[in-house]
Amino acid sequence: MTSILAQGASDAPQPRQPAASCQSPPAGAGNPEELARSRVAIEGVWPQVDGGRFPVKRAVGDLLVVEADIFADGHDKIDAALLYKRNGEHDWREAPMRLVGNDRWRGAFNLNENARYHYTIIAWRDLFASWRDEVAKKHAAGVSIGVELTEGRLLIEQAATDDTRGGEADRRALRSLAAQLQECKDALSLLKPLLNDEVVALMHRAGPRTHLTVYPKNLPVWVDRRAAAFSAWYELFPRSQSGNVTRHGTFDDVIKHLPYVRDLGFDVLYFPPIHPVGRTNRKGRNNSLEPAPDDPGSPYAIGSSEGGHDSVHPELGSLTDFERLVRAAHEHKLEIALDFAIQCSPDHPWVTEHPEWFDWRPDGTIKFAENPPKKYEDIVNVHFYRDAFPSVWHALRDVVMFWAKRGVRIFRVDNPHTKPFPFWEWMIADVQSSFPDTIFLSEAFTRPKVMKRLAKVGFTQSYTYFTWRNTKGELSEYLTELTRTEACEYYRPNFFANTPDINPSYLQTSGRAGFQARLVLAATLATNYGLYNGFEICEARPIPGKEEYLDSEKYEIKAWDMDRPGNIREDIKLINRLRREQPALQQFNNLRFYNAWNDQILCYGKYTSDRKDFVLIAVNLDPHNPQGAHFEVPLWEFGLPDDASIDVENLVTGDRFTWTGKVQHMLLDPRERPYAIWQLDQPKER
Amino acid sequence: MTSILAQGASDAPQPRQPAASCQSPPAGAGNPEELARSRVAIEGVWPQVDGGRFPVKRAVGDLLVVEADIFADGHDKIDAALLYKRNGEHDWREAPMRLVGNDRWRGAFNLNENARYHYTIIAWRDLFASWRDEVAKKHAAGVSIGVELTEGRLLIEQAATDDTRGGEADRRALRSLAAQLQECKDALSLLKPLLNDEVVALMHRAGPRTHLTVYPKNLPVWVDRRAAAFSAWYELFPRSQSGNVTRHGTFDDVIKHLPYVRDLGFDVLYFPPIHPVGRTNRKGRNNSLEPAPDDPGSPYAIGSSEGGHDSVHPELGSLTDFERLVRAAHEHKLEIALDFAIQCSPDHPWVTEHPEWFDWRPDGTIKFAENPPKKYEDIVNVHFYRDAFPSVWHALRDVVMFWAKRGVRIFRVDNPHTKPFPFWEWMIADVQSSFPDTIFLSEAFTRPKVMKRLAKVGFTQSYTYFTWRNTKGELSEYLTELTRTEACEYYRPNFFANTPDINPSYLQTSGRAGFQARLVLAATLATNYGLYNGFEICEARPIPGKEEYLDSEKYEIKAWDMDRPGNIREDIKLINRLRREQPALQQFNNLRFYNAWNDQILCYGKYTSDRKDFVLIAVNLDPHNPQGAHFEVPLWEFGLPDDASIDVENLVTGDRFTWTGKVQHMLLDPRERPYAIWQLDQPKER
Repeated sequence: MTSILAQGASDAPQPRQPAASCQSPPAGAGNPEELARSRVAIEGVWPQVDGGRFPVKRAVGDLLVVEADIFADGHDKIDAALLYKRNGEHDWREAPMRLVGNDRWRGAFNLNENARYHYTIIAWRDLFASWRDEVAKKHAAGVSIGVELTEGRLLIEQAATDDTRGGEADRRALRSLAAQLQECKDALSLLKPLLNDEVVALMHRAGPRTHLTVYPKNLPVWVDRRAAAFSAWYELFPRSQSGNVTRHGTFDDVIKHLPYVRDLGFDVLYFPPIHPVGRTNRKGRNNSLEPAPDDPGSPYAIGSSEGGHDSVHPELGSLTDFERLVRAAHEHKLEIALDFAIQCSPDHPWVTEHPEWFDWRPDGTIKFAENPPKKYEDIVNVHFYRDAFPSVWHALRDVVMFWAKRGVRIFRVDNPHTKPFPFWEWMIADVQSSFPDTIFLSEAFTRPKVMKRLAKVGFTQSYTYFTWRNTKGELSEYLTELTRTEACEYYRPNFFANTPDINPSYLQTSGRAGFQARLVLAATLATNYGLYNGFEICEARPIPGKEEYLDSEKYEIKAWDMDRPGNIREDIKLINRLRREQPALQQFNNLRFYNAWNDQILCYGKYTSDRKDFVLIAVNLDPHNPQGAHFEVPLWEFGLPDDASIDVENLVTGDRFTWTGKVQHMLLDPRERPYAIWQLDQPKER
Repeated sequence: MTSILAQGASDAPQPRQPAASCQSPPAGAGNPEELARSRVAIEGVWPQVDGGRFPVKRAVGDLLVVEADIFADGHDKIDAALLYKRNGEHDWREAPMRLVGNDRWRGAFNLNENARYHYTIIAWRDLFASWRDEVAKKHAAGVSIGVELTEGRLLIEQAATDDTRGGEADRRALRSLAAQLQECKDALSLLKPLLNDEVVALMHRAGPRTHLTVYPKNLPVWVDRRAAAFSAWYELFPRSQSGNVTRHGTFDDVIKHLPYVRDLGFDVLYFPPIHPVGRTNRKGRNNSLEPAPDDPGSPYAIGSSEGGHDSVHPELGSLTDFERLVRAAHEHKLEIALDFAIQCSPDHPWVTEHPEWFDWRPDGTIKFAENPPKKYEDIVNVHFYRDAFPSVWHALRDVVMFWAKRGVRIFRVDNPHTKPFPFWEWMIADVQSSFPDTIFLSEAFTRPKVMKRLAKVGFTQSYTYFTWRNTKGELSEYLTELTRTEACEYYRPNFFANTPDINPSYLQTSGRAGFQARLVLAATLATNYGLYNGFEICEARPIPGKEEYLDSEKYEIKAWDMDRPGNIREDIKLINRLRREQPALQQFNNLRFYNAWNDQILCYGKYTSDRKDFVLIAVNLDPHNPQGAHFEVPLWEFGLPDDASIDVENLVTGDRFTWTGKVQHMLLDPRERPYAIWQLDQPKER
């Protein structure tokens, strides 16, 4: 939300006019020199996001596989290599590329560091390989090759005089070979040394790279730490951790709660804003405009006389208490994620310290957030341009840096789609240049291209439409989009099954089985997933007709009874344990859907590329009725025929058995457990 | 084919090392200024070829439709425009863009000149439109809008002071409106003038463009004259036009033959090379290595003591004779296309004048063309780098310019895939900068990506795999690739049904009906097509087991009897006439395949976007048997229900009738005519 006033002429920075010149090859360029440098065609380079405008995303330990169409004119042999380096490194490292087929080449390199890398491709004509191929063909056809052998000797001699390639040993070997070939009395005695495999390898290492062509872009890849790609989140309100609705919870209460969260198997513990809550137009229970005097208000109305985004709400404790909580969490192998919500309460110190960051109306009042005709009376928004540029950019970056310096390296960002994309691109890159391990989760639920753009400009993870994808068709179509289109190069979903803002319709009527089903779907379809507390006790009481919780924790302090009968804590522990134990579940794009002949049963699998871990999962999407289905055991993924047998472990019960034949039958009873998870054993080599 | 010698270290020009710096946003850039300029996201711009590296191709008279995903943060209104200009123009012209849906915008502009154009996109936040939307919503909801109206007045006032936008009249109107609004006593009296539609239009024309964002690329489109997109070619050997195998044909003989070619309905008359033919290792009949003394040799062995690429073979006539032929052809509404074949006979003057353009072997001999173990003893190739760079590039360009200056503006280029892509890219652009009407047809039959690259670097038209696509599946799959993938933005097929080099297997056994079928397929699937003479008399005698003609005209003078019984001249005349008369047949990407339930019957249609011309074609691919099929009349393309009636004209016979119902039956008898062509009449509005 930004003001509609005074943004035209005085707009800073000034827009740039399109360049009058053309960046593509001009018509009738007089000098062919520039074009001549690219004799080898390198095109269709993959992966890249918007032509290299944005980085591809990967995580530490990944292998980056790069492909390209590479070819030259004529029939000569060519060769190609992948060049790569970590940001800040001066010299390129090199990985070989190999022809896959149809002029498609492939190479790969390891991403070992949490950093930005760049890669590009070089290709060249390999004259010695062409010569060797020609001579071999002629020799086989019985054609005289005397002159050709002399040509081969000259190629070696020339390589021996070129000291731009190869190591010292190779260069010595080349010089010695050239001298030896000089000694050969007749052309034919050159045949054996010239066609020697070691000479071929030597020339590959140290021979010239004729017509070396360089792909004109350095493509970026941003490598996150692994938690960016694989994490289980749990969300709670620190102020509700006292166990008593009349007492405001503290960071110390949260510390006492850490073992509970860790026992459930989560990695990340995420809090809504922990900052001082504004007083002006504070919201009461159920978003009421008339709060009771002791109502705590929405923590998203950030800022009061007690401080702003770099302060903690006094009732939660002190900054020191918070730092102790961060340490305690680490000891429990949990990581704290904070909320980064840019809006302010009208009481935020910035409103008086930096009036130029806010929108003021002609009558002198501050402009509240609104989405006409709806108004949000307890918050005001900063704007990002005009007099607020760049000071508010720096201030917001400094807020993130403030918490990062206190050990917080995960931020869930509230409503990023209502703030300028360029701000996110700059801010995230700037923070990650100091703290590359920082993770930003985009809480945007808006149009698909906007959500994707936020991921492109730098958000590490993204909320998704998962909450509204319930049927077999919806889930398989959506997951296919996420795993099979360009989006998978930069868009990392985090499947929250519920949030304080979203009490999904499906769960409002599904009962316990629906929670079990949605847990399994979120945690095994995606690699990043999250639950908001209450999910484990199947809490789903709505404001009637809405996807909101009744008596929402956003506006009041709650005391949760997580031991409530019917809770699904054991399911959560099981699923989080399996996620840790099964490498296949730690990858996203390896998802495959399999046939189960029942529209209520979603069947899918994930496997590691070596097939050592193969997890097959089935979920009954109907929470009210048992559903049975014949289904296909994906024997073909192991290269097995349809009538083969395969050993199976039921990962829920631990039972082991054998399936014989591709079509099997399952029955999933929601009263018992609406899902099944099997591991298929890779058949032993015979 | 280039030498394997001495190309490494001395290679000119020198390869360029990849840039050490990164062109994408650097991590942790200190200053957000640059990023901030692009508040509006503009992505997914279409069409573009390889990110703007190569031009999109269109023809004069085309409308270029451009689409892009355009959106900004938040909920404010945005607007966008397409900027375009012809190469050499300084100022951009502007065409509006409109939202299509899902953040996709579309605009278009006319391509009126045979020239290079550029286009890009600008987008901005429209604060007045946002303001108006907000006020309308609030007004409808009965919310007080007094302050909002004052904000509206301020927006007008601000626009009135900004003189970077709008014409003089608009600027005056704005100033007058601002003054008038100043007079309004109370806020509410501002409502009517501010929401006035004329004011909205005025602000659209002359109001500020806030956060104007410019797409960072100027995308090129090359606009050819229409013959590039629609032409019928006929190929003959001038030396065979005397009607007597013992007399070498002349340009004057060709002039006499022009009425015949024009009567068949062709646009382009194409000749194999017309230059002096070499003597050294001249080929005899049927590619024999032992020619008879009077054998004329292959015209592709170019150059002798009588001259090279800028001379004409003396037995054909003089250069003056040739120029007369060109003029005579134009009088017959025919255009002459020449062959540009870069290889030389060993007798070519260049061999002695420019030994540095050729490859010499260690024994001092010239290197003949070869594809080991095959040798082509009558030709030698120039190379394009080393000492030949750039002199041979200039010399070859000058050859094309030589003929272009003599009125030849169409060149069929022999084997372009064996010469460097950068040469073509430079040469074609350079020639077209002087003669933009020049058309280059790429005679490459090689791997698909190489053929496409040649089209990308500038070839106007391309030979295709059509000759080897015979079945219904092959034809529909290949045409779908050509018309439905990115290729259609730059790759213009020219479907030759036969060539002196290709006597297709299908035609060797098909008899007359096969020729009729392939004629119709070539001429109506593609918009550019060609026949090599002899096709009209169903000539197909092969060298056994090969796709080559027996007694090939490449190596001997022929005398053709085009009146031979069984000729298909009437079919050719008919098809060429229909191509001229039916606008639908002059477009390529409008091709649609329709259901005919017989694997031997290919059924397809082409229609203009207004449906005023709708041509439906069926071809029996089985030349030996009558084939019948039920088929679908594409009533749905007119928005008609399956049981509707449609008036039809049989374009072959002129009969008129009515089809009622979607499924009809056809019978195509190869003994009579293996094809049917109907025009479906657009139903009259009721």
